[in-house]
Amino acid sequence: MTLTLADIRAAHTRIKDRIHRTPVMTSEALDEKAGARLFFKCENLQKIGAFKARGATNAVALLTDEEAKRGVVTHSSGNHAAALARAAKLRGIPAYVVMMSTVPQAKVASVRRYGAEVILCEPTYAARVSTANSVVERTGAVFIHPFNDPRVMAGQGTTALELLEDVPDLTDILCPVGGGGLISGISVAIKSINPEIRVFGVEPKGADDAAQSLAAGRIIPCTAPNTIADGLRGTLGELTFEEIQRHVDGIVTVSETEIVNAMRTIWEVLKIIVEPSGAVGYAPLVDGQLDMPGRRIGIVLTGGNLDLDTLPWMTPAKA
Amino acid sequence: MTLTLADIRAAHTRIKDRIHRTPVMTSEALDEKAGARLFFKCENLQKIGAFKARGATNAVALLTDEEAKRGVVTHSSGNHAAALARAAKLRGIPAYVVMMSTVPQAKVASVRRYGAEVILCEPTYAARVSTANSVVERTGAVFIHPFNDPRVMAGQGTTALELLEDVPDLTDILCPVGGGGLISGISVAIKSINPEIRVFGVEPKGADDAAQSLAAGRIIPCTAPNTIADGLRGTLGELTFEEIQRHVDGIVTVSETEIVNAMRTIWEVLKIIVEPSGAVGYAPLVDGQLDMPGRRIGIVLTGGNLDLDTLPWMTPAKA
Repeated sequence: MTLTLADIRAAHTRIKDRIHRTPVMTSEALDEKAGARLFFKCENLQKIGAFKARGATNAVALLTDEEAKRGVVTHSSGNHAAALARAAKLRGIPAYVVMMSTVPQAKVASVRRYGAEVILCEPTYAARVSTANSVVERTGAVFIHPFNDPRVMAGQGTTALELLEDVPDLTDILCPVGGGGLISGISVAIKSINPEIRVFGVEPKGADDAAQSLAAGRIIPCTAPNTIADGLRGTLGELTFEEIQRHVDGIVTVSETEIVNAMRTIWEVLKIIVEPSGAVGYAPLVDGQLDMPGRRIGIVLTGGNLDLDTLPWMTPAKA
Repeated sequence: MTLTLADIRAAHTRIKDRIHRTPVMTSEALDEKAGARLFFKCENLQKIGAFKARGATNAVALLTDEEAKRGVVTHSSGNHAAALARAAKLRGIPAYVVMMSTVPQAKVASVRRYGAEVILCEPTYAARVSTANSVVERTGAVFIHPFNDPRVMAGQGTTALELLEDVPDLTDILCPVGGGGLISGISVAIKSINPEIRVFGVEPKGADDAAQSLAAGRIIPCTAPNTIADGLRGTLGELTFEEIQRHVDGIVTVSETEIVNAMRTIWEVLKIIVEPSGAVGYAPLVDGQLDMPGRRIGIVLTGGNLDLDTLPWMTPAKA
């Protein structure tokens, strides 16, 4: 069940007319600050505002007609949910999305806009799983995991194909790690094309299960995540962990301050909206924690969905 | 002194390696909402965060070496100031910028980052002009007006060349009007290439001097502007008014609510940062004031520089 470059290339052919070819942005100011050349792959500007559109679209496209007509179901902290809802809508099939009742309202609204049925559950991973299972039993819909699924991982890996096409001479890639779907796909693609390019995962110190898991050689669950980066609070899956062990050069952990500073700097300088999780790939560089002089660094900005009423540097206006 | 398409094409050749080729963004959701196809030309993602990089770069490039070595001076509410400072830095010459003392701090900081000398003056147009004149006397620097200058107008018009190259079958263009530099250049380019394309200016109801001036057949000064769109509080210039009279199909005025709604919708859906003035081109469509069913509408998003601590829908956090 090992993911291959061929899977990822096939996924790209399959989905490329249904997703945005996202831009790679650069900034003289941020290059100067980092002492390196930075190439921001803007998946926050992707359909549904996150790279998750890639994996979900690939997974739905791969269903047989028989499977497809029963619909799809998932549990997700947000962006995969919107992505699956959109992919299902494009194929004209039902989508059921289990979300924890604590998820930001903006993410619930986004999923509903795509016509999916949202089922809220208690804010625990166990409740997500059992609720999704009951939907499968009731509807016969196909479960599409947010990350631990080769179809999804292959779709996410298409990000790297585009980035490398635009910037062939990268030396490093920084990529946020939550469940590991994105970095799995990216690292398989990158190492298959050019093993000299280093691939680093980045995760919050308050949700450093990937760093712990790599050190321990087995999956360490993320039991009490404490980070503003709500998309990175999950635990690695068996399939994603396997690819990460095989291909990723290391995991960098970042503080909450670095995450917020990275987010705000991207807003101010690149003039684009990233959510906290989406800015994590840039967080090791924003305050100089990681010094990579002269390198050519690809940074994946993963998503831009957040509630604009509760930015980390502000308090909400009184109604 | 009439601006021509040849001037604008020559400007594009001159500046295109020193500016970004900004993307044209689209959104299924916003198309559906408007009942039309919308093409957002993202000058908020331009160098210095605004289209003003185009005109200033063209003007500085056109200086003789003799003129250039004395430097350049301007007065500006912000984006032209940063643009001129950057253009001067690229050519290695001094820049002097007169700014009203009420300008947002983010804009002052941006100008200083490019190495310009900032001279603050009283918040009146008269003080801006007299202070700039005294800088010219003191330094011999060349004055580059923010909009009423054919070199600047030609530079701004290059926006239309790129937009039309990417979307040749546009039917309409919506463009914010402040001093009129951008819409002058754009309307000359568009009407020279395809006179069937309609060009509409958009301005705040609280600063509707362009609408009043067109109706009166002479420039009506913007004496008491009352709008959040701080980049659109100026009065038309003689040169820009002439081109607007000749080429622009009409002026649409928008409310403050429409401006803020347009800004927030762009942030939420396109995931990009526009300042209030920068969102004004979309404001006639956001709440359905202007109904243009089935049209293919180019919307110029002009800038993305604003203080992220004081968004219109929030109150600042207590320190």
